[in-house]
Amino acid sequence: MSKMSEIAGVLKKEFRERRLHAGERAASVHGIAKRFRVAPVTADRVLKLLEKENEIYRIKAKGSFLCKDAPVPKRIIYFSESKYQSRSGEYFIERTRFEKIREVFSGSANAIDLVPNPVRFETGELARLLENYDGMLISASHLLYSGKFKAFDSFRGKTVLFGLERALPGLRFSQVVPDFSTAFDRIPEKYTLSGYDRCLVLYSGCHNYCARCRVKSVRNFFRKYGNASGKIEFVSLNTSSYTASYVAGQFLMKNLRENTKRERLLIISLSDYLTDGIGKALAESGVRADVLSFDNLDGYGWMHDGPAWVSSIDCEMVRIGETAAKLLLRLVDDGDDCKYIVSVPTTFADRGSIRPQCTRRKPANTAENIEMSAVFY
Amino acid sequence: MSKMSEIAGVLKKEFRERRLHAGERAASVHGIAKRFRVAPVTADRVLKLLEKENEIYRIKAKGSFLCKDAPVPKRIIYFSESKYQSRSGEYFIERTRFEKIREVFSGSANAIDLVPNPVRFETGELARLLENYDGMLISASHLLYSGKFKAFDSFRGKTVLFGLERALPGLRFSQVVPDFSTAFDRIPEKYTLSGYDRCLVLYSGCHNYCARCRVKSVRNFFRKYGNASGKIEFVSLNTSSYTASYVAGQFLMKNLRENTKRERLLIISLSDYLTDGIGKALAESGVRADVLSFDNLDGYGWMHDGPAWVSSIDCEMVRIGETAAKLLLRLVDDGDDCKYIVSVPTTFADRGSIRPQCTRRKPANTAENIEMSAVFY
Repeated sequence: MSKMSEIAGVLKKEFRERRLHAGERAASVHGIAKRFRVAPVTADRVLKLLEKENEIYRIKAKGSFLCKDAPVPKRIIYFSESKYQSRSGEYFIERTRFEKIREVFSGSANAIDLVPNPVRFETGELARLLENYDGMLISASHLLYSGKFKAFDSFRGKTVLFGLERALPGLRFSQVVPDFSTAFDRIPEKYTLSGYDRCLVLYSGCHNYCARCRVKSVRNFFRKYGNASGKIEFVSLNTSSYTASYVAGQFLMKNLRENTKRERLLIISLSDYLTDGIGKALAESGVRADVLSFDNLDGYGWMHDGPAWVSSIDCEMVRIGETAAKLLLRLVDDGDDCKYIVSVPTTFADRGSIRPQCTRRKPANTAENIEMSAVFY
Repeated sequence: MSKMSEIAGVLKKEFRERRLHAGERAASVHGIAKRFRVAPVTADRVLKLLEKENEIYRIKAKGSFLCKDAPVPKRIIYFSESKYQSRSGEYFIERTRFEKIREVFSGSANAIDLVPNPVRFETGELARLLENYDGMLISASHLLYSGKFKAFDSFRGKTVLFGLERALPGLRFSQVVPDFSTAFDRIPEKYTLSGYDRCLVLYSGCHNYCARCRVKSVRNFFRKYGNASGKIEFVSLNTSSYTASYVAGQFLMKNLRENTKRERLLIISLSDYLTDGIGKALAESGVRADVLSFDNLDGYGWMHDGPAWVSSIDCEMVRIGETAAKLLLRLVDDGDDCKYIVSVPTTFADRGSIRPQCTRRKPANTAENIEMSAVFY
């Protein structure tokens, strides 16, 4: 049974790859027996199985023929979150992530096209662009906040959105999101506030939806341990990701200067952009503080002058991208019309001092070096 | 590339099926070339691919050997929602659904055991039972309401819960749920209240979570069409599924008797159990009303004396079960640790008169006739 279905699987895949049309000759008992070194009885059963699955029809003494045309390969559009470059000329996450996504697609007949920084398109342009595609993969939280989602209303293909904090309510897309609660479950005793005089939770008030989710996670975490007393201060910083590092640094420098009592300080940063500024402020002031940061801490490679004591709640963007790509392939290939919300677990990493590992990586290849079906600039 | 990975796939599956252990001889260039009729270069590439995937290691002039033991097949427990019999001795849904689920598992090496009516177990018993399993499939909303979910806290395997109204917040299981909004999107103009004097929405106040979700769907639907005025009455009936038909029938008979003005009536029933009673009341009173019912209307085959004008929001329980089984297999086989929430679309079916199609089905085989690894009674 199992061997039969394997052979049937190989044949089916070949029919598709050879782009055979309905009515074309499929496979013969003799051919299968010889090629796969199985008995003619088994080969006959393979054909019966394919017949049952509506792949082929058989005509006595004539052979077997395909029931339907091989499906046309699908075209997928991938809206990448960033311009493919960080401000410092590096783009580790996007590069590694895109390479992983391309790897997922390399095993399929479908083609994937990369479109970096989709925010620059007008809504109408986006809608027209989408007319040529059967599926789209969006790692574009920026796109989401830009209010251009209207462009997607008329899209009839499959969509997987990924990388956001958690599933956005009301969206009809499939979504792949990090599950921060899994990391919180494993935060050690150290971070239960008993060792600190004060805890500052910094978040960006601009990315409201994500920030709200993370603030909630932090509140729940400390509530569980019953020590959320007066020690915690939630600080909403009025900043977007582009100014976050600067704003967080400014805020913290002011605060550290005022900290004349030399309180033991825990800083919880709800985004890696903010942590960048926090790191710089700590390095500049020479003040010691523990930092617990959300987001993929080592992904962007921004921690050049980071604090010496840092832990992070790691969300592997590469894995989220890979999960999203696999999901989209399944939706597109199987014509699955279900909506999936997949949460990828995050992990807690106590990094101690990150400095030794923080070898500043060289700028990787430019986007142009990445071989692809199409890149829109 | 594609042919190579196919052959590699066939070999990998064989390693598992033959339960090979780490260090056992895997495959040779010559053997692969001969068996799959490919060039030695290609065969060598297949081995290189398997090596890269950490399946085998190669020793020059010795051959290739397995890196790890073949995985042991998994045991799955399936908690079936019902006792496998409806009150009238029929159990269409459970039977068809279970057969579909078994079909999904038949292609895998894993074994599935059926446990009907799990509510009868005590929490401790359930926990002990679970110790032997790697995965569980739960179609048990009854189990959910019974407060026995504590038994699952210590379960370390994968879990897929299915059939509930929508994903239950806070549950760490993967879930497969019907998406009723997809059906509402397709309800025709007829049901926008303009043709009716009055609309009664009946729901069971006992199954609170589901009822609340469905009431919300109905409210949203009518709000969208802007005619939710004074015509709609939401009626919460104090009933469980066992008494729902009787309670709904009683309520409606009283209401129809009082309807001296002969108003044009639309009855929206939020569960098929209630619709059963509504059907009987309409048949007995001879009153005409249109019925729009949630749940899989023809699943249980209960519509023996149903109303003549009925539409339904169909949720294919068989498909939901199949989706859940496939998902569990993937989680168990791939060791995937993500949490999935999958919504299966529902459809709107305008059945007109259902009487002609309502051939009362014969009681099907008893549960004992179903061939399985194990059935717990």
